[in-house]
Amino acid sequence: MRPLILAVRKTLEKYDMVQPGDRVVVAVSGGADSVALLHALWEIRNDYHLSLIVAHLDHGLRPEGEKETLWVGKMAGKLGIPFHRDRVDVRSFQKERSLTLQEAARELRYSFLQGVLRKTRAGKIALGHTADDQAESLIIRFLRGSGTRGLSGIPPVREGIYIRPLIETWREEVEDYLGARKIAYLTDPSNQSLQYLRNRVRHELIPLLQQYNPRIRQNLVQMADLFRAEEEFWTKHLEEKFPGIVRSRRKGTLSLDIPSLVRQPIPVRLRCLRRAVETVQGNLRRVSLSHIWAIQALTEGPEPNKTLRLPQGLAVTRAYNVLNLTLSQEQGAPFEYSVPGPGYVEIPEIGRGMRFEVQSRKRKVLFEESPNVALLDFDDLDFPLTIRTVCPGDRFQPLGMEGEKKVKDLFMDCKIPALHRKRVPLLFQGERLLWVTGIRIDHRARLKPETRRILRVELI
Amino acid sequence: MRPLILAVRKTLEKYDMVQPGDRVVVAVSGGADSVALLHALWEIRNDYHLSLIVAHLDHGLRPEGEKETLWVGKMAGKLGIPFHRDRVDVRSFQKERSLTLQEAARELRYSFLQGVLRKTRAGKIALGHTADDQAESLIIRFLRGSGTRGLSGIPPVREGIYIRPLIETWREEVEDYLGARKIAYLTDPSNQSLQYLRNRVRHELIPLLQQYNPRIRQNLVQMADLFRAEEEFWTKHLEEKFPGIVRSRRKGTLSLDIPSLVRQPIPVRLRCLRRAVETVQGNLRRVSLSHIWAIQALTEGPEPNKTLRLPQGLAVTRAYNVLNLTLSQEQGAPFEYSVPGPGYVEIPEIGRGMRFEVQSRKRKVLFEESPNVALLDFDDLDFPLTIRTVCPGDRFQPLGMEGEKKVKDLFMDCKIPALHRKRVPLLFQGERLLWVTGIRIDHRARLKPETRRILRVELI
Repeated sequence: MRPLILAVRKTLEKYDMVQPGDRVVVAVSGGADSVALLHALWEIRNDYHLSLIVAHLDHGLRPEGEKETLWVGKMAGKLGIPFHRDRVDVRSFQKERSLTLQEAARELRYSFLQGVLRKTRAGKIALGHTADDQAESLIIRFLRGSGTRGLSGIPPVREGIYIRPLIETWREEVEDYLGARKIAYLTDPSNQSLQYLRNRVRHELIPLLQQYNPRIRQNLVQMADLFRAEEEFWTKHLEEKFPGIVRSRRKGTLSLDIPSLVRQPIPVRLRCLRRAVETVQGNLRRVSLSHIWAIQALTEGPEPNKTLRLPQGLAVTRAYNVLNLTLSQEQGAPFEYSVPGPGYVEIPEIGRGMRFEVQSRKRKVLFEESPNVALLDFDDLDFPLTIRTVCPGDRFQPLGMEGEKKVKDLFMDCKIPALHRKRVPLLFQGERLLWVTGIRIDHRARLKPETRRILRVELI
Repeated sequence: MRPLILAVRKTLEKYDMVQPGDRVVVAVSGGADSVALLHALWEIRNDYHLSLIVAHLDHGLRPEGEKETLWVGKMAGKLGIPFHRDRVDVRSFQKERSLTLQEAARELRYSFLQGVLRKTRAGKIALGHTADDQAESLIIRFLRGSGTRGLSGIPPVREGIYIRPLIETWREEVEDYLGARKIAYLTDPSNQSLQYLRNRVRHELIPLLQQYNPRIRQNLVQMADLFRAEEEFWTKHLEEKFPGIVRSRRKGTLSLDIPSLVRQPIPVRLRCLRRAVETVQGNLRRVSLSHIWAIQALTEGPEPNKTLRLPQGLAVTRAYNVLNLTLSQEQGAPFEYSVPGPGYVEIPEIGRGMRFEVQSRKRKVLFEESPNVALLDFDDLDFPLTIRTVCPGDRFQPLGMEGEKKVKDLFMDCKIPALHRKRVPLLFQGERLLWVTGIRIDHRARLKPETRRILRVELI
């Protein structure tokens, strides 16, 4: 096993991550990876003339958060490194902005780190992602369906600011390093609880895939390198091609010239479309490959006038030779889906889906502390169920409350902006409202001591 | 569910698979997919003015092969379609040519189909691969580590000759079609037994991955479409770039200009190297991404003179500004590896590896009828073991024989060409030869009635 320090030096140099004199903000959750990162950078700080700053964010998701913050602060103090901390309420932010918990946590975390960067006039933000995180990311993206961009994985350096000195180091090497130096770390710091899918991939899927190919992790990291190189090629290529396809551009809207677009080979065309979506809405959240293919089909289809609506509300309209992408205030049409039985139901209007699973009580329920999972008393329920958007007058008895309440009032109490309310799926049996997803289940549908069968519903 | 016939029509037209008047050789193993393909093409033959020919190859791997051939012939007869058949001995061919069983079967199958094509003056060969095969291929290639080429999966049309009219049809649709029309098929025709890995992916891995993403199969097919489009782009791009990099070219050797090569961005560079390897050795069998990366490292490394040897014996030599690829008669240097315990040992010299697993007797052994798997009596054995190439004087007692025999004589009896003998791994404990891989185990190391622990060794 290579010593960790050597691996970190090699990665720093290979990707030209730091310059002499750099001030580096190290994001430290307190978990093994970030603690090892901090100590490794601390050990070599003089060789590279680095000054370090520790930044720690309490996501406000677990009561232990406060204690963990103190612990990280103490560690920074012992190393004589300035310590910056903050506490946020990820759940409120999530509701306000209609994000997934992960999206909300990520957004708050990066904005915190950027804040520390500015305040301390630092030049770099160091993150603790390892080669194992890289391999896991590739699997997650493969499962979701990805092109070269997705399969290029986690970038070692992003925007010249974010650096990941452990990205070519395996988790075993991190653990060996910490063990050899008897460095303590937290076993389940706050932001780990956000990683339900990643944990499952790590503990269930990768061990199985290793039976198929013992070197799968190494191969995945190599694949990421390859696709990152491809993506760099495409980025340059697109810089040449994209401007020639844009007809006009104003705030919140972009028009593409369809004849110029279809003259490009498919890989260029798809990337132009993705670039266009990103340009108008500022990000690519919840935009999948299949959305891009759908836009591409629109440009080639026989209908000269047609509109497509993307998850975040972006309207893509073809008007003969012009493709218009317009950011719409209208957050999508109402929807209604019938749920015939256990399984998965897609809700394309919001780019999400719901999974239904019937479980017997005895099975132990793990990792369920999420507003996107509901456990309902299935002794008293039956399929078909209905998923739909809110209608005037919808009401239910929120869990723990005595009387009924209008969903509209609940939305107001939870500060869900009017624009987002039409995007919240409600679960019904007939007229009976069971769950306002992300917020609250009905009191009468809750698990009771005598409940034998559980309906587990997850908003994905 | 779409009717199969509609899906087949759509695919034929989308990929321009047939022309009116085409004579089409349909490869029919007798399994569900190929039987459905034959019947579907037969149903629509008049609409497309096709004349059909049935071709069936008995791989000589299972005693049922002969009966199956008769069965397929009878089916062709009932439909009034000319029937061509052959029987080959895949195992002998495999030994002669030092191939894996799959490679040998594939080579013989395609050469048989080409023969029928020529004999019947047909223009197309129709193969029964389905969308499920496509999804499984992508997973297999992902597990192995792949770039755009690998992830572009099974081509719907190859070389303008091979067509796959079921490539966008799901296996359920095939089964529905056969069920609705009460068409009989063989449940495990001869070439299914070759598909150990594919069967495991199908029955074990895909159901698990569907828990992560219920639409994974569909997404994988979409990924294959995307990467196929990328690969087309690259093929064209390479046609422009590759000639400018070649310095000289003779039979069995190719020289590349390193300065011209390194001026290309990495994705182009890697593809030029792969193209060069393919040009010299005629195929890319057992050449993985990591071999191509290794050649790339050679062009950039500090040593001005260095040689790399690829699995099929291709020598890649850097001499300052020139990279020479030479097909060598010498099939690689001898190798020796120690096996410390259960697990996987790579043999880069031959681009293969061996897996060691200790099992208790009670566990039922499945799918083991392969010359690449040995089950040895582990009560009488212990690690470390040794894997090495043959040395003069090596001898053992071949399973079922009375006395000892020289390995060299065994090679001669089995008609292993001298060039390939150095590539056959032998398994030893100390001086005791346990297994001549692919050929025979030692009689004394065989499982006995009283054996309690089994060492399962697989050449992969």
